[in-house]
Amino acid sequence: MPSVIVVGASGYAGAIAASILWRHPRFELVAITAREDAGRPLTDLYPHHRVPLTLEEFDPDRRADAAIVAYPHGSAAPVVAALLERGVRVVDLSADFRLRDVATYERWYVHHPHPELIGRAVYGLTELNREPLATADLVACPGCFPTAAILALAPLATAGLIADVVIDAKTGVSGTGKQPSETNHFVSVDENVRPYGVGAHRHMPEIDQELGALGAPVPITFTPHLVPLDEGELLSCYVTPTRRLAQEELAELYATRYAGEPFIELLERPPGVRAVRETNICAISVHADERTGRCFVFAAIDNLWKGTASQAIANLNLMFGFDESEGLR
Amino acid sequence: MPSVIVVGASGYAGAIAASILWRHPRFELVAITAREDAGRPLTDLYPHHRVPLTLEEFDPDRRADAAIVAYPHGSAAPVVAALLERGVRVVDLSADFRLRDVATYERWYVHHPHPELIGRAVYGLTELNREPLATADLVACPGCFPTAAILALAPLATAGLIADVVIDAKTGVSGTGKQPSETNHFVSVDENVRPYGVGAHRHMPEIDQELGALGAPVPITFTPHLVPLDEGELLSCYVTPTRRLAQEELAELYATRYAGEPFIELLERPPGVRAVRETNICAISVHADERTGRCFVFAAIDNLWKGTASQAIANLNLMFGFDESEGLR
Amino acid sequence: MPSVIVVGASGYAGAIAASILWRHPRFELVAITAREDAGRPLTDLYPHHRVPLTLEEFDPDRRADAAIVAYPHGSAAPVVAALLERGVRVVDLSADFRLRDVATYERWYVHHPHPELIGRAVYGLTELNREPLATADLVACPGCFPTAAILALAPLATAGLIADVVIDAKTGVSGTGKQPSETNHFVSVDENVRPYGVGAHRHMPEIDQELGALGAPVPITFTPHLVPLDEGELLSCYVTPTRRLAQEELAELYATRYAGEPFIELLERPPGVRAVRETNICAISVHADERTGRCFVFAAIDNLWKGTASQAIANLNLMFGFDESEGLR
Amino acid sequence: MPSVIVVGASGYAGAIAASILWRHPRFELVAITAREDAGRPLTDLYPHHRVPLTLEEFDPDRRADAAIVAYPHGSAAPVVAALLERGVRVVDLSADFRLRDVATYERWYVHHPHPELIGRAVYGLTELNREPLATADLVACPGCFPTAAILALAPLATAGLIADVVIDAKTGVSGTGKQPSETNHFVSVDENVRPYGVGAHRHMPEIDQELGALGAPVPITFTPHLVPLDEGELLSCYVTPTRRLAQEELAELYATRYAGEPFIELLERPPGVRAVRETNICAISVHADERTGRCFVFAAIDNLWKGTASQAIANLNLMFGFDESEGLR
Repeated sequence: MPSVIVVGASGYAGAIAASILWRHPRFELVAITAREDAGRPLTDLYPHHRVPLTLEEFDPDRRADAAIVAYPHGSAAPVVAALLERGVRVVDLSADFRLRDVATYERWYVHHPHPELIGRAVYGLTELNREPLATADLVACPGCFPTAAILALAPLATAGLIADVVIDAKTGVSGTGKQPSETNHFVSVDENVRPYGVGAHRHMPEIDQELGALGAPVPITFTPHLVPLDEGELLSCYVTPTRRLAQEELAELYATRYAGEPFIELLERPPGVRAVRETNICAISVHADERTGRCFVFAAIDNLWKGTASQAIANLNLMFGFDESEGLR
Repeated sequence: MPSVIVVGASGYAGAIAASILWRHPRFELVAITAREDAGRPLTDLYPHHRVPLTLEEFDPDRRADAAIVAYPHGSAAPVVAALLERGVRVVDLSADFRLRDVATYERWYVHHPHPELIGRAVYGLTELNREPLATADLVACPGCFPTAAILALAPLATAGLIADVVIDAKTGVSGTGKQPSETNHFVSVDENVRPYGVGAHRHMPEIDQELGALGAPVPITFTPHLVPLDEGELLSCYVTPTRRLAQEELAELYATRYAGEPFIELLERPPGVRAVRETNICAISVHADERTGRCFVFAAIDNLWKGTASQAIANLNLMFGFDESEGLR
Repeated sequence: MPSVIVVGASGYAGAIAASILWRHPRFELVAITAREDAGRPLTDLYPHHRVPLTLEEFDPDRRADAAIVAYPHGSAAPVVAALLERGVRVVDLSADFRLRDVATYERWYVHHPHPELIGRAVYGLTELNREPLATADLVACPGCFPTAAILALAPLATAGLIADVVIDAKTGVSGTGKQPSETNHFVSVDENVRPYGVGAHRHMPEIDQELGALGAPVPITFTPHLVPLDEGELLSCYVTPTRRLAQEELAELYATRYAGEPFIELLERPPGVRAVRETNICAISVHADERTGRCFVFAAIDNLWKGTASQAIANLNLMFGFDESEGLR
Repeated sequence: MPSVIVVGASGYAGAIAASILWRHPRFELVAITAREDAGRPLTDLYPHHRVPLTLEEFDPDRRADAAIVAYPHGSAAPVVAALLERGVRVVDLSADFRLRDVATYERWYVHHPHPELIGRAVYGLTELNREPLATADLVACPGCFPTAAILALAPLATAGLIADVVIDAKTGVSGTGKQPSETNHFVSVDENVRPYGVGAHRHMPEIDQELGALGAPVPITFTPHLVPLDEGELLSCYVTPTRRLAQEELAELYATRYAGEPFIELLERPPGVRAVRETNICAISVHADERTGRCFVFAAIDNLWKGTASQAIANLNLMFGFDESEGLR
């Protein structure tokens, strides 16, 4: 049974990855690490995960077959490099290996300490990259918004049907991370909804990179909003198609593209985030709008699960030849 | 002091109108009525409003100088007709006199019992129609979404600068009304966000009518979403301008258009709905997006106040020659 | 593999029972029924449960080894009688067989249609009644408040240490049921907390019956409060002990009584309901208060899980000789 | 018109005090100060208050007739001393002058820098101390829990009718203050309810001091709980009376004691906190419980208003000979 460590298990996503792996039938979770909280039982921080392990200091020489790295951008790359050097296969949750272009990365994030590894990384959008994932030793897990955006728009983009698109996203507060701040103070969020990162969100270049590669014209308009709930993300995509599409054709396009996908749910009614909470599922509905000629695509995911931690496990399953759904049903 | 009755004070908006009028320095609230709850003190239904009046049956012969009518569409028109006949000046909160075109009204709502009165109504978007409001005897108060949409986009529309626009709206649960339903059950809303009325919301023709008249190309793309909060509405408007606009020019356009407006707040940071809760204020921010060339306009209102009840009072103030802000500061 | 039907799967608790059974390794869920929603797929009502069955009309002649009955009080008893007659073993979630005394039942509920079956029922508080549960053919599952109250106080009651106790409960909105009402309207609950059922809650005689039998003096003071969350229940129990207890003795009493219990968590810090959400766990902390000499016991459960549906499955496991935890881990 | 400064207007309570004073017909708000945020417009921190003043450094020589001091305990006393020395009349919101006994203060808080001023302070529970408040130059505003506890229990305590009482409190998150922390992180609070400060809350000695002085036996059992809402506090008081009371007698006791009180609402149904939000009102209901012989008293206030800032203004009104309700209706 392959052994796995979770590096950075004190954050929301790392802790969920640890929780899934702890109950996974095919992997053995052998260690969890944290920088500030080393020495504390994980149940101190996340009683509801009920993972009876204690956070350790990260030790690159700790033997393991694989690692999930859940460090902030910039801090992740050196850890990833150290692990790869020792033959550990890595799924990285940070942004460090998502962007193909170093200059773009450095414009949106920080100085990149290991640009030589970028080319080695497979972009971990499971549904699109199963083949390269099977042999990858470094997987860059997508950001939560790109995950939903790509799944929402891939069928239209690939078919060359997108002339223009506006993406309006609504996300729960867990997306701001575990560190307390004015942004996630209950009193700031409660009874409120507001846009943030307007014209400047770091997931924009990632969305452009991936949807552009699939055939969508870029740059894409994208604005997230903070809403008073904890986990969940809804993307409302307003597509100006290159030609008018009827509802049947649009629905058929998605049904065909996503036939047999274990974690895509195509719905007739628009999805709510509540129904995908704590799952690896992306729920999608499409609407060919007769009045305006636009195509609307709504996609709902759990930002911490499909948007981060559970997608990481799906990728890990593929890397080790297991069924993508192991541990995630 | 002019006397006012609120017809239909058992709903959210009517009750707020009653509450504002009860404390208003220029009007005397002489009666409040309800269809089902007649005989009950209003404090039974809304203890927090602390209006010590009892709901009565509606009596068209009850003498008053003015009436706020807060009945559902279709039911409002006959009441309005009866009141006008008796010389009572009316501010109607329903959709019955908002749409100029009877056929459009009947396509989206029901059979119109008094089409002859449509032409007599002034559309009660205060900031746009002060002059006709001053002499109106029938005011059709705008829907909550049209209120925010028009205020958000009027400066660009009037200047002929809108080539295309997508409006994505987020609204609190009070917008679903006081009648309990699966839609407003706490458990349906909690930890959820979802689109509704996709391609079919009744405020769409109203937005088209008003923004079209100001110069925006129609039909306009508009989709509302339900978010877990009680009062408040945020509209995110993604405008494709007819020519590229710099941030300074865009900001200047709004500053000029809304100079001196008592209830428009132009903000540098995107507005949250929390800051306009229980006010007659529409908070707006604009962003000329360099990446995409689009102009983003965000507008926040309280759907029950500026979106309905307090705008009604502002209009009533104007109809009686009072300062628009009386009772609303 | 024993076959099970869930009678009344359109309510919150019945649907969760169906969801647990659908994934249960030892039972086969063969049918789900509903009175009003027969003919609808369960995913229409509860998409997040992802149980691909359609609700049927209840047919007492439908062959099954066991049934979970999730009908309202009064309606449940005739269904239970019909099932027992056909040899189906029943776990009933209603109040119909919880109270030993018919007169008490009829004072708090309605006329009892099958008083002859009361004596046959085993009270389904798993931790207390494992032996009789193993051979029961009718199990009366406890109410959610009694479940938490009994688990919180059994160690003290059994030891004869309770002179007096005040129980203050806080519960989420799912406890009001699926039927929309003014009580569970989002706008009524949001930003609110309020007592209800003051001096008159139907779980009071049940708490008295069970804790009284264990040695606590009755009647017990009990008041529930509605708080703005969906699932979860916290009971704060303020015990006047018959003699002063030190923290160590109190903690030891609970540790001994609940040693080895798979679904009792004894915590040093007071429990929050969030950590037991969607589990069969009752989390308990005890505090011997030096200032006042009182013993405080805090107990948190998920009202729909341990408080209803998952406790039913634990009981069903015992009735069929399976490990109590099957399907619930 | 007397001039007032608010010292420490960057916290929740100080900001509300500033907001009330800004619109107050009898006082002139001449300055607002802050330690860390000096130089920032108050609208940056609290846009919804719409107070167009900029936070300044505190200057004790700034001339004013009165000051509201909203500093943390320990930091308030030196500021208060400096103001009193200059003849400024002070309403202090901290705990520094609430406890009569220095040793008790120092056991629960910190070293007291100005014990010589304690005797000079009037305890600012408006309804109980109107006479001394009228001539006070130093008012110690009660804590939020003591405010509700005293108002809930004073009639019974004064009549010598309390043999024992358990107070279970539920409070919104604004009570944790503006500083972001794990406690007020949205994700910690959302879908949760939990006890805190068990056996060790700093408001306990204050409740004991005041209710003890009125005749209640102390120490009193008191436990607060954090619930997912922003403003509001509900106290459920379970009184063992010295003799059995009928509902009529109990209700009459409260009606008599609180007759004519402008900010006490006696309700027949138990109060919810939502109905007192952003008011100076304490809503109370009483229930003589026939089953147990106990008397239940439920009291709801807004912790930031009646529990802190608006009570401070009511006291200030009295100190300057104004009607207690000025600026608070």
